Amino acid sequence: MPKSVTKVIGILTAGGDCPGLNAAIRGIGKAALGKYGMQVVGISSGYEGLISNQTRLLTDHDFSGILTTGGTILGSSREKPFAKGESEDVSTGEKPAIIHDNYRKLGLDCLVTLGGNGTQTTAFRLSQLGMNVLGLPKTIDNDLEETDVSFGFHSAVDIATEAIDRLHTTAASHNRIMVVEVMGHKAGWLALFSGVAGGGDVILIPEIPYKPSVIARHLMNRARLGKRFSIVVVAEGALSTKDAEEKERNKKKGRKDKNKSKPHAPSSGYRLAAEIEEHTGLETRVTVLGYLQRGGIPSPYDRLMATRFGTEAVRLLAQGKYNRMVVFKNGEVTNVPIEKVAGRTKHVPPDYELIECARLVGTCFGDE
Amino acid sequence: MPKSVTKVIGILTAGGDCPGLNAAIRGIGKAALGKYGMQVVGISSGYEGLISNQTRLLTDHDFSGILTTGGTILGSSREKPFAKGESEDVSTGEKPAIIHDNYRKLGLDCLVTLGGNGTQTTAFRLSQLGMNVLGLPKTIDNDLEETDVSFGFHSAVDIATEAIDRLHTTAASHNRIMVVEVMGHKAGWLALFSGVAGGGDVILIPEIPYKPSVIARHLMNRARLGKRFSIVVVAEGALSTKDAEEKERNKKKGRKDKNKSKPHAPSSGYRLAAEIEEHTGLETRVTVLGYLQRGGIPSPYDRLMATRFGTEAVRLLAQGKYNRMVVFKNGEVTNVPIEKVAGRTKHVPPDYELIECARLVGTCFGDE
Amino acid sequence: MPKSVTKVIGILTAGGDCPGLNAAIRGIGKAALGKYGMQVVGISSGYEGLISNQTRLLTDHDFSGILTTGGTILGSSREKPFAKGESEDVSTGEKPAIIHDNYRKLGLDCLVTLGGNGTQTTAFRLSQLGMNVLGLPKTIDNDLEETDVSFGFHSAVDIATEAIDRLHTTAASHNRIMVVEVMGHKAGWLALFSGVAGGGDVILIPEIPYKPSVIARHLMNRARLGKRFSIVVVAEGALSTKDAEEKERNKKKGRKDKNKSKPHAPSSGYRLAAEIEEHTGLETRVTVLGYLQRGGIPSPYDRLMATRFGTEAVRLLAQGKYNRMVVFKNGEVTNVPIEKVAGRTKHVPPDYELIECARLVGTCFGDE
Amino acid sequence: MPKSVTKVIGILTAGGDCPGLNAAIRGIGKAALGKYGMQVVGISSGYEGLISNQTRLLTDHDFSGILTTGGTILGSSREKPFAKGESEDVSTGEKPAIIHDNYRKLGLDCLVTLGGNGTQTTAFRLSQLGMNVLGLPKTIDNDLEETDVSFGFHSAVDIATEAIDRLHTTAASHNRIMVVEVMGHKAGWLALFSGVAGGGDVILIPEIPYKPSVIARHLMNRARLGKRFSIVVVAEGALSTKDAEEKERNKKKGRKDKNKSKPHAPSSGYRLAAEIEEHTGLETRVTVLGYLQRGGIPSPYDRLMATRFGTEAVRLLAQGKYNRMVVFKNGEVTNVPIEKVAGRTKHVPPDYELIECARLVGTCFGDE
Repeated sequence: MPKSVTKVIGILTAGGDCPGLNAAIRGIGKAALGKYGMQVVGISSGYEGLISNQTRLLTDHDFSGILTTGGTILGSSREKPFAKGESEDVSTGEKPAIIHDNYRKLGLDCLVTLGGNGTQTTAFRLSQLGMNVLGLPKTIDNDLEETDVSFGFHSAVDIATEAIDRLHTTAASHNRIMVVEVMGHKAGWLALFSGVAGGGDVILIPEIPYKPSVIARHLMNRARLGKRFSIVVVAEGALSTKDAEEKERNKKKGRKDKNKSKPHAPSSGYRLAAEIEEHTGLETRVTVLGYLQRGGIPSPYDRLMATRFGTEAVRLLAQGKYNRMVVFKNGEVTNVPIEKVAGRTKHVPPDYELIECARLVGTCFGDE
Repeated sequence: MPKSVTKVIGILTAGGDCPGLNAAIRGIGKAALGKYGMQVVGISSGYEGLISNQTRLLTDHDFSGILTTGGTILGSSREKPFAKGESEDVSTGEKPAIIHDNYRKLGLDCLVTLGGNGTQTTAFRLSQLGMNVLGLPKTIDNDLEETDVSFGFHSAVDIATEAIDRLHTTAASHNRIMVVEVMGHKAGWLALFSGVAGGGDVILIPEIPYKPSVIARHLMNRARLGKRFSIVVVAEGALSTKDAEEKERNKKKGRKDKNKSKPHAPSSGYRLAAEIEEHTGLETRVTVLGYLQRGGIPSPYDRLMATRFGTEAVRLLAQGKYNRMVVFKNGEVTNVPIEKVAGRTKHVPPDYELIECARLVGTCFGDE
Repeated sequence: MPKSVTKVIGILTAGGDCPGLNAAIRGIGKAALGKYGMQVVGISSGYEGLISNQTRLLTDHDFSGILTTGGTILGSSREKPFAKGESEDVSTGEKPAIIHDNYRKLGLDCLVTLGGNGTQTTAFRLSQLGMNVLGLPKTIDNDLEETDVSFGFHSAVDIATEAIDRLHTTAASHNRIMVVEVMGHKAGWLALFSGVAGGGDVILIPEIPYKPSVIARHLMNRARLGKRFSIVVVAEGALSTKDAEEKERNKKKGRKDKNKSKPHAPSSGYRLAAEIEEHTGLETRVTVLGYLQRGGIPSPYDRLMATRFGTEAVRLLAQGKYNRMVVFKNGEVTNVPIEKVAGRTKHVPPDYELIECARLVGTCFGDE
Repeated sequence: MPKSVTKVIGILTAGGDCPGLNAAIRGIGKAALGKYGMQVVGISSGYEGLISNQTRLLTDHDFSGILTTGGTILGSSREKPFAKGESEDVSTGEKPAIIHDNYRKLGLDCLVTLGGNGTQTTAFRLSQLGMNVLGLPKTIDNDLEETDVSFGFHSAVDIATEAIDRLHTTAASHNRIMVVEVMGHKAGWLALFSGVAGGGDVILIPEIPYKPSVIARHLMNRARLGKRFSIVVVAEGALSTKDAEEKERNKKKGRKDKNKSKPHAPSSGYRLAAEIEEHTGLETRVTVLGYLQRGGIPSPYDRLMATRFGTEAVRLLAQGKYNRMVVFKNGEVTNVPIEKVAGRTKHVPPDYELIECARLVGTCFGDE
């Protein structure tokens, strides 16, 4: 290693893939190699590669031409090195020790982790073991705390909105109810944003339990006004008030979520469609967007956000500021202690202006 | 009706909606009103509107701005006025008589029917009752006989290919098998075209029954060569040799298709994914494109084809040539007797050059 | 007018057209008619229609299906009712008086103006004459003060970035310098955002005068590293230091801008290409995006922003808060006094984080 | 070279870049390496690389992931090894001799040339010198004889049509004439196809000289019917009857084309806009699409066509059929003697059905 190398950083991408990962890797890599003369170690397949020590030194060539590509050149995995359970003593466990060992062997000054909730929680725990970490918020769900937006989110909004646009024409031609199920188990950001952008007549999110009867009334009202078709956008995790209450009861009783235990439990979209047909008699069709929301070329917005997050991380590295997550807050790229993010989920606040906005243009949330 | 009106034509759009319907309506309308001074009657909701007499005179204003819009301004339905059964006497039945009556009351010189197999078969039967008809081939399945291409098909190919592109990045990031189910119950055109355009590693179509073991071997071979992910494109109607044989046996015995009788039979995609996981142990995920393939803005190719078909229909009308379907054959817009199309399905020939082409670039069709 | 009508509002769209105008009109209209029972008067062709009194009452039907359409259903014009000159007494002039008169005749409680700098400056002056106004920031240039973003901007970023993506492949295949000229006479937001999102090797904006020799050195350096092609993104208003100084001198002398006086002055793109070829000898090609940046379907981001701005305007109306511009600031939809916006231009600050970010990934701004 | 290698083929891409080149290279490469065990030599930068002997052996890895990418992995150039002049003796000249020499040194059994008119004419001449060649028709202009379509054409149609769609909204908002200049110096295919797909009100192509007065009358007629905006699509090489006659006269006199001699002659779009404004007084704006039409991801249609052409070439190679060009004719992939293509241009026939179709939907070609 030449003397001029000031620092050695490792990068990994963990969790579900997401548009903008490569743009962020490029941002980190170009800034680290270019201005600061750092060394950049690419770690394969998320935390898995840090356990099995699958790494390679990245060069300028690796960062060329990847700004616009989907996926991640490093590969990803859902490996979670810490055993589950809140009472866990973070210093124990075999995998964290192996990671710490590899971190030292690689001579890393810092580990940059590109990922969502789980990834950043793991990163925080690694920092508690004495490693330096920096997190970049990546998630199409936009449910990371302390940042207004994560990269990947707006690409997913674009994809989901385009899908809703397509379904509009079919709905109108056949006078049908079209239900679109979008991602979001815990948080409804994607359903809310794509629902408003796509002109959804009904939007259902996990934060607002819905009553099928309220939805039915809304749809029938539209039909009465001559609008014989409707678009219903539903997040994966949206629940009727009845199901939400049952879930709550089960949680208290310590039971596992009933639906989770069934491997082929009907999706929220199919469940909802059955409820709508039952209540209204209107012909209803379901589309589940699924993996389409994760893949493909990142939108310009996400390329920008990922590049900005990447270079901000390198600025922090150069200053020796560690154990923080880069965020976009109040219109600015900045950073927060990573512990403020770990283990938390950013929900859509019930009084969020965009919900009020959606209600004002006539959207039903199933709660009135 | 002023004297200058040479002819009165009715237009209807029937069956599933499809990109290009409005472009075709515009092509017919502009040509009929403009050069030939015909009158154009729009019939609502396919044959349903011809039974219930829901019609209105269309003006130049109706044809403005619709070249680029999805769906159909006339609405559609799946109404089939003739009772099923080949032995049917076409002159009987209440609905055909009502249609004939309305045809006369509207003073139609010809009925232009935009639709697929079912629609054109009905049109043919109406022609046998003495009505003049002209068919325009519309179907995203491309399974109409006598025409190389129907409008709607290439828009669907574009949508399915874009979806495959997206799934590629996720497949690569996670080393997964991604199964994409595209439309096509009887014919594999859409799966074949989008599969080759999207670089599918496996393409399964109804015309070629597959062996799960052959697919598994192909996927494992790829994995051995370091290609740890694969894209599998499967038509709705693709069957394994075993299922195909059972279907054939049941058909002979006069039994209903086993799967058809089950309302929630697993789709071909989910069935296949289970087979792949069983044979290979590789992580496999499924995406069902469904209604996304029908909707949205027609591609330039389909706008062109629809416009060309529409104006050709009017040229035929002007010449008093009826009971034909407009087609694109050997690189030219032309027309054939509609009886040659009725009741038939255009399958992918097993020796089709594109299948050979796909095999040459390494695609597996599951048939050794 | 029934008693239940609480307020009557007029809407106009002025200045260059821009994606999201119809979404904003829909947002205002649906909120105003739906919850608040207001009446909405549509004014044709910007301020021109307010002078010639071309207006019509808008109904729910007018707001249906326009969320996704480009352009403006009201039409636009560049009419500026106030004569130029800062010393102008706003109370004089024929056109403002006519506008005031029509405002009263229409019984307007408020005039909602969708537009950019010029539009909002006019709106402010009208407010000084005693009319109530509310401004919505619309501009693809993003140069309105007091708001982080205007609707239309991100759609333009998407279009320009897609164009840069396309040119990348041609540049690489032919080892060429591709110059892309994007909009922005005074402010470089669009060039900066699309330039970073598109991976521009050189980005030139009005706020940072450039030296051709610095650009030439950067391009030759890339060529030496084997990167024989480059992408140069240049705002319409970008100037070399020499031209910037001459402009400044002329301004002081009270002379008109030299280039402005020539009807066919070469665009910034063509000027720059000549400079690059002269300094480097590298083959250079120019693309001027022009009107492509204004048109077409608004992006989901802009549909959201426009809808949010529209409903916020109606909330302000309901509260009787006038003479404000709706803005997006610090991640929130809010509003500011319209006088804070009038007559000002939001420039890219030289120390803006995104400029620093771009430099870190290797972008040259021509200023050493 | 192992015994199993049956043949060695060289590939080059020449002329302007074009979507689908990489898909074709992949089609050739995968088929040649896979089933037939041929060796594939990639030649850099078109004929230039065959003169300077810049080549490399391509492996399966080179063909991976390029189906969807724009440009060409081999690079291109406009090098024409034969000196101009029809009277040329093809056996003389230094460059052809060098090429022949390199062809032998590389041990090529055949040279596969991906390109347009010029490229295939050169290939034909090389075949006359004793080399084996196979041509693949690549051109966004679609002006190669003997094939209904070349790959690249439909991607360009898609791009141009999308641009026209965008300009439509601006035209409508501002009541303007929008002139769009698309590629096509000698043939009007691209203008015609994108013009009809985009709903162009006027389409001007080199094959039909236009009268400005006829266009003006058409535009004024539209304005009188309340259609105050219009879209005019013009090919680069479209000429007014006056200019066409002058060109013809100059040609006869042996003079160079007047416009060609001027380096900055106004484009057909700007010339036309001036004519329109002069004749109508209507506000007219110009957009020149230029290089945007060449770049970017190939459309599914072109990926298919390029892959089919590539595998067909390898089938011919395997059979020892040389000196042919692969074509798509009468709905089938087939091939013709390359001499039938060399030196010819496929023009739009004046009685082409699509021209008649366009006239029927109201398009003016400026010739009546």
